[in-house]
Amino acid sequence: MAGSPRRTAGRRLQLPLLCLLLQGATAILFAVFVRYNHETDAALWHWRNHSNADNEFYFRYPSFQDVHTMIFVGFGFLMVFLQRYGFSSVGFTFLLAAFALQWSTLVQGFFHSFHGGHIHVGVESMINADFCAGAVLISFGAILGKTGPAQLLLMALLEVVLFGLNEFVLLSLLGVKDAGGSMTIHTFGAYFGLVLSRVLYRPQLEKSKHRQGSVYHSDLFAMIGTIFLWIFWPSFNSAPTTLGDGQHRTALNTYYSLTASTLSTFALSALVGRDGRLDMVHVQNAALAGGVVVGTSAEMMLTPFGALVAGFLAGTVSTLGYKFFTPILESKLKVQDTCGVHNLHGMPGVLGALLGVLVAGLATHEAYGDGAPAEAALLGLPARLPVLRGPDLLGGAWGA
Amino acid sequence: MAGSPRRTAGRRLQLPLLCLLLQGATAILFAVFVRYNHETDAALWHWRNHSNADNEFYFRYPSFQDVHTMIFVGFGFLMVFLQRYGFSSVGFTFLLAAFALQWSTLVQGFFHSFHGGHIHVGVESMINADFCAGAVLISFGAILGKTGPAQLLLMALLEVVLFGLNEFVLLSLLGVKDAGGSMTIHTFGAYFGLVLSRVLYRPQLEKSKHRQGSVYHSDLFAMIGTIFLWIFWPSFNSAPTTLGDGQHRTALNTYYSLTASTLSTFALSALVGRDGRLDMVHVQNAALAGGVVVGTSAEMMLTPFGALVAGFLAGTVSTLGYKFFTPILESKLKVQDTCGVHNLHGMPGVLGALLGVLVAGLATHEAYGDGAPAEAALLGLPARLPVLRGPDLLGGAWGA
Amino acid sequence: MAGSPRRTAGRRLQLPLLCLLLQGATAILFAVFVRYNHETDAALWHWRNHSNADNEFYFRYPSFQDVHTMIFVGFGFLMVFLQRYGFSSVGFTFLLAAFALQWSTLVQGFFHSFHGGHIHVGVESMINADFCAGAVLISFGAILGKTGPAQLLLMALLEVVLFGLNEFVLLSLLGVKDAGGSMTIHTFGAYFGLVLSRVLYRPQLEKSKHRQGSVYHSDLFAMIGTIFLWIFWPSFNSAPTTLGDGQHRTALNTYYSLTASTLSTFALSALVGRDGRLDMVHVQNAALAGGVVVGTSAEMMLTPFGALVAGFLAGTVSTLGYKFFTPILESKLKVQDTCGVHNLHGMPGVLGALLGVLVAGLATHEAYGDGAPAEAALLGLPARLPVLRGPDLLGGAWGA
Repeated sequence: MAGSPRRTAGRRLQLPLLCLLLQGATAILFAVFVRYNHETDAALWHWRNHSNADNEFYFRYPSFQDVHTMIFVGFGFLMVFLQRYGFSSVGFTFLLAAFALQWSTLVQGFFHSFHGGHIHVGVESMINADFCAGAVLISFGAILGKTGPAQLLLMALLEVVLFGLNEFVLLSLLGVKDAGGSMTIHTFGAYFGLVLSRVLYRPQLEKSKHRQGSVYHSDLFAMIGTIFLWIFWPSFNSAPTTLGDGQHRTALNTYYSLTASTLSTFALSALVGRDGRLDMVHVQNAALAGGVVVGTSAEMMLTPFGALVAGFLAGTVSTLGYKFFTPILESKLKVQDTCGVHNLHGMPGVLGALLGVLVAGLATHEAYGDGAPAEAALLGLPARLPVLRGPDLLGGAWGA
Repeated sequence: MAGSPRRTAGRRLQLPLLCLLLQGATAILFAVFVRYNHETDAALWHWRNHSNADNEFYFRYPSFQDVHTMIFVGFGFLMVFLQRYGFSSVGFTFLLAAFALQWSTLVQGFFHSFHGGHIHVGVESMINADFCAGAVLISFGAILGKTGPAQLLLMALLEVVLFGLNEFVLLSLLGVKDAGGSMTIHTFGAYFGLVLSRVLYRPQLEKSKHRQGSVYHSDLFAMIGTIFLWIFWPSFNSAPTTLGDGQHRTALNTYYSLTASTLSTFALSALVGRDGRLDMVHVQNAALAGGVVVGTSAEMMLTPFGALVAGFLAGTVSTLGYKFFTPILESKLKVQDTCGVHNLHGMPGVLGALLGVLVAGLATHEAYGDGAPAEAALLGLPARLPVLRGPDLLGGAWGA
Repeated sequence: MAGSPRRTAGRRLQLPLLCLLLQGATAILFAVFVRYNHETDAALWHWRNHSNADNEFYFRYPSFQDVHTMIFVGFGFLMVFLQRYGFSSVGFTFLLAAFALQWSTLVQGFFHSFHGGHIHVGVESMINADFCAGAVLISFGAILGKTGPAQLLLMALLEVVLFGLNEFVLLSLLGVKDAGGSMTIHTFGAYFGLVLSRVLYRPQLEKSKHRQGSVYHSDLFAMIGTIFLWIFWPSFNSAPTTLGDGQHRTALNTYYSLTASTLSTFALSALVGRDGRLDMVHVQNAALAGGVVVGTSAEMMLTPFGALVAGFLAGTVSTLGYKFFTPILESKLKVQDTCGVHNLHGMPGVLGALLGVLVAGLATHEAYGDGAPAEAALLGLPARLPVLRGPDLLGGAWGA
């Protein structure tokens, strides 16, 4: 812990210098590259002669605010259940996410909205930057307690770039659709974190020590995180989807999926618990798996029944993961998954990707109104109103 | 407490089996009956050739999210003021509400949006299901600490059906208007809970025991619940009202009413408290009575002054109820109202119904623009724009 | 502490009587003066034959709810970091803000929306009343722990009037634009509170005593306040700005500014802290300075880079203020700034006003599209769509 005065001074300066360096670098890049887009620039907006009601702000900003709440309140407090790391959880979440928002505005901007030498920003870039920050916080959950803020900032520096690259390959090159980020956010964030956790393996770090002292209030604080994540997950999945029925259906499907994962989590937790007692860690985490599992498919015609089934399976897999798989992960693979992100984000994310493939495979032109529905044909009506303003970046939910 | 091994095993399996059974049953009913409505179904929405901006989602989803926050954060944390039941409050709120959302989607759907053999769902059914979950949680508040999660689920199973029936009789058969649910939610939820509480009367349960140990943090957690309920109550009352001036006026009236109930609660609490000290239980609960009391009338032309008077009376009645009526309820009627729901929801709900009758009785065609306002007649203008898209279920605020 | 029985009884009745008196007075004034405006009055709205989608409610209510959350949750819990005053912080915030909403509806109404002998209210008056309550709570932060609820109500009675007067002079007489209130809210609230704090100077009140006992949970509660303020500040600044690009750009600029103030706060806090440790008070407060500093200029064409620089400076100034200036303020000027509002609201507010002057000075017709952009001229298009519906009260962000 102690060291030579020079080393101590060096460590003292580590965080301040890194923060200043990163902030300086992003500020310069912002000056050179980042510009308002046609909906945030005064001259461009007025010149285009739009009605104010058409500004994307009114369609996406309320959902953005829900996502923003999830990132900072949800993830921040969810990790407080480890009393020992209460401050670290909330404080470092704050720092990491703030940096990730700036850095991913640049990285995602280069990949997705770079035109005429400039990155153009508006409410969609805000949503996407928050999504990337979400992935960084998921990885943070896998290594909580093993490293300090300076190392975490370096992790974010690297992860945001890889996140942008992975997203570009999946969404732009392969043409995959993943509005709620089952693949791009949850699966990526979880496995990135687990790899890091393996690298940082410390045999002397015992699970049992994490939870010493009274955990009553810690668990209540963690429930604040859980519940804000739970209630706003419909906004998370629907924030970047196509306008109109797309956003509406995504929110509805996610809402049903979450109710089912909550019921299956309570059922399974009591079933595998000692003396039938509920385990608060299951309730705090696995109940959210229903949001992760429909990240890819919620925009599709999943049906309310499909959403219930998906949520039920996700809650089940996640709860069983906490009970049986996390200990194996640590003992056999030397991966200490502090917050169990493999159970909440990893497995449900993979499941969500598979579900997306399944639902996309079952899609018919009739179900999506791409062709004329039977009634329309009978009435001699035009087949369909083209979706005029889909988001440029994350696109509609199903393949063209 | 102990029992034969078989009985213990039976009790262990009670909650898991009940959760699985209920989830299985609702999932099958969802598969058979629940379908997307014309605003969440891709083919129906595109066929109708709507502008995306017209999707009901954009008019009601932000209010829905506020209601959702009230149900899960507000009710969940409000009940934490009883330190002994902190986990139960938050955890069982979560389980109960998740189940109630699914079950009331079915029950309310059968009563209100069953067409062509199917229940059609969208943001309005989400709002209505959350309202029903609110009634279930109000009843939970009356029996908190007296029963376990399996019994609570059975309570919800029954209550959701009776809620739907009561709502159908009031709104559809009798044509009563009750957007914010003074009658259907608050009065129903409170008295249902009080009847249950009478049935579950346990003489050995002493009030004083509820609050042992340090209550400092418990009271702060409870204030989280109170304040989220307080700030979002304008959205609760306005979420299902008619679009345009209806939602706007409802939110405004509720906002004024809540400020007045807060002032009268502080005044009365200090007046009746020992040594003029404020009682945190009054502040946490009675300050909210202003939201309950205008549930029926806030959509009407109540006037800002009327809202202040209503809120003031509700805060007064509610605070005095906590001080003087709750002890009588327990000693004379053997009703142990753990969270005092009779004071927060029962009496203000009845008061709200009476206020609704009064304001509806005073309504004039001129005030609501049903006839031509004097200015319109002078200018030879048509009398009025008909309200094009009122919600199907809960309708406008005043009688036809 | 003790006194003659009569004095004790007098003090007991102080708060109840003051609450009842103030509520009675505002209720009478509401009855005489306050009326629904053309968007909340049923007859006026329907007569004007508007589409419901045009109701101001849908453009501003989601932002209003975010502001409402900041006032009651944000300010209420932020001050809980002083464990000793936990209840007072949350409880008195509740009482003070509830009264301020009513009283400032009247005062601001007289100054800004008094037509035909009546004050007309709607969502904009709700936002403005919340803003005024914010200023009252900032002042409360400077004197927390020095006075009781009755004195605080009297402070609010006076401050709301002076706030309205100051706002009228700045916005209406001098034509200054200050949508996010760098001047009218933050600077005014901070210096009003600091003057009061000087008047209430109590030499025996030692800083160190504020924080006795375990502060672990108090700091976590305070972080709830901080984070809700942080995430919703983009809505605070954008709630009253011009519709369309104005609201959109304001939210975006505030979002960037806050990320930068967070990074600079962590950097500076670790730099000046003992052994390089972060000070939670800095994190809880100075990280928010980025929201204050762009209150005036966020609606302008500040550029994303400009927002980062502004936020960075504000976080730096604010953190250094906590470390070096607050102790001087107390020892030399006898101003005990309990929550450090001079650092969070005072200095960043002044900085924000200067920044507003700078950005307004640099404004060009081309940047704002007031004249025809070059492209428009080339294409022979009309120069610009006039902004049809700017808010009457707080107006656009830049001078005509």
